[in-house]
Amino acid sequence: MARQPSDGRPLIDLVFTAIDSPFSVEILRGVTSSSADVVVSSMADQSDPRTWSGGLASAGRSGAIVVASELTPMDRRILDKAHIPCVLIDPAAELPEPEVATVGATNWAGGLAATRHLLALGHRRIAVIGGPVAMLCSRARIDGYRAALESAGLEVDPALIRHGNFHHIGGYERARELFELSDPPTAIFAGSDEQAFGVVEAARLTRRRIPEELSIVGFDDLPMSRWMSPPLTTVRQPLAEMGRIAAEMLLSMIEQREHRGRRVELATELIVRSSTAPPPARS
Amino acid sequence: MARQPSDGRPLIDLVFTAIDSPFSVEILRGVTSSSADVVVSSMADQSDPRTWSGGLASAGRSGAIVVASELTPMDRRILDKAHIPCVLIDPAAELPEPEVATVGATNWAGGLAATRHLLALGHRRIAVIGGPVAMLCSRARIDGYRAALESAGLEVDPALIRHGNFHHIGGYERARELFELSDPPTAIFAGSDEQAFGVVEAARLTRRRIPEELSIVGFDDLPMSRWMSPPLTTVRQPLAEMGRIAAEMLLSMIEQREHRGRRVELATELIVRSSTAPPPARS
Repeated sequence: MARQPSDGRPLIDLVFTAIDSPFSVEILRGVTSSSADVVVSSMADQSDPRTWSGGLASAGRSGAIVVASELTPMDRRILDKAHIPCVLIDPAAELPEPEVATVGATNWAGGLAATRHLLALGHRRIAVIGGPVAMLCSRARIDGYRAALESAGLEVDPALIRHGNFHHIGGYERARELFELSDPPTAIFAGSDEQAFGVVEAARLTRRRIPEELSIVGFDDLPMSRWMSPPLTTVRQPLAEMGRIAAEMLLSMIEQREHRGRRVELATELIVRSSTAPPPARS
Repeated sequence: MARQPSDGRPLIDLVFTAIDSPFSVEILRGVTSSSADVVVSSMADQSDPRTWSGGLASAGRSGAIVVASELTPMDRRILDKAHIPCVLIDPAAELPEPEVATVGATNWAGGLAATRHLLALGHRRIAVIGGPVAMLCSRARIDGYRAALESAGLEVDPALIRHGNFHHIGGYERARELFELSDPPTAIFAGSDEQAFGVVEAARLTRRRIPEELSIVGFDDLPMSRWMSPPLTTVRQPLAEMGRIAAEMLLSMIEQREHRGRRVELATELIVRSSTAPPPARS
């Protein structure tokens, strides 16, 4: 049975795969603004990452929010048996069964908006760097990119679609490869702001000016994307809002003793700053 | 009395003044790597920030880590009465009474090392941007800056010492002011990496090249400082380590039913990257 602290505030768990990114702090801010007490943990800190659900069950928690991961069938059995409801933020790979509550953002629409912005500026050689191939959010963004190109009557060049991890190094390495193409892109849509920072660094080291010679769009709108030089054009995910809504859904599931949840997708929004401009005139 | 969860792991609170910075996530990573379950909260989320200690007491927590704030006499009375030991990370203003446990970094030595690095490169007009005047860590860094200049036989020019908040805007605004001086600095030592990013942006908007025309040193070594273009020279604070050690101290105080703690200062370290270089030749 869920154990309530003596002051009556429910105690919920916020479980990250790893606390390794400014992305985490945005979600955290949203979850802690709820009326629950929030225990934060990282699967990366556990000797066996598969045991997090067992840990929650034995500690008698009221509910859990799991970020950028998935629920294995074993996790579901353990949490169900312990009557611990669960909400997933940004599920990693396959969509969970329909009764699992999830909160995400409109990744496909974000990819579409980013690519349309670059098309409207006059770019035709637009590359995209996605996250790991298997991740759902990444696939949706790349599909949005394809849809924008195709609806503009442009062919999708497979050489311009790359995958890396969502961190700085993923953006840096894929950008260096793209720059080596015989017909390199004039614009790069990166799968995350961190990747975009890697693209910025690759451009600096190869003496490409931003945005005059290379336009860059990120994804997330981390606070630091405003601080880049130049400030980054990016697709905003309302990360704190996603955290807040996940907490509210979970608290309502706890209160109603209901383990089935809704699916919520919050809108993404293109934020135009200074890292995008028309492509250089062809020499 | 402290209440133990059913699996025997102590439940401790990590209290931030606000969860508004990548700084927070570094401390969090250290604290969650301990063997406690960690409840994270922000004073900014509470209707009355003065009530956080009362909330802890009524929830029956085992102990608390408080970041970049201070313990008011009222907080101390409340926590003592509820037998909740407490560790401060980076106390904000006055040093608390000697029996209060604190974990910090060697801010003075960091200020000294940053300034000596710039002196060794040949800079003579070196500005410093501190945090809010009252903050202890900021005062110690500026005193380290003074000591480096004075031991090099240079006079300290009060016009080159500025104060701002620790965020991007603080660095940006003070840098714009420094650029307006009739004899502007060739190097700026910023009080935080976030401030340094603001200085970078001010330099970009006024067309100063980094590091050729302006050298910049930050403080913290946030992961993103490596991602700046150019990568930021900075003074590393071992934030995750500070979090981990604060958690270990707290757990030992809980176990030994001891409310008096030690003071620990972890070493800072200058990390030289690409934002510092010799000053431009005088024309």
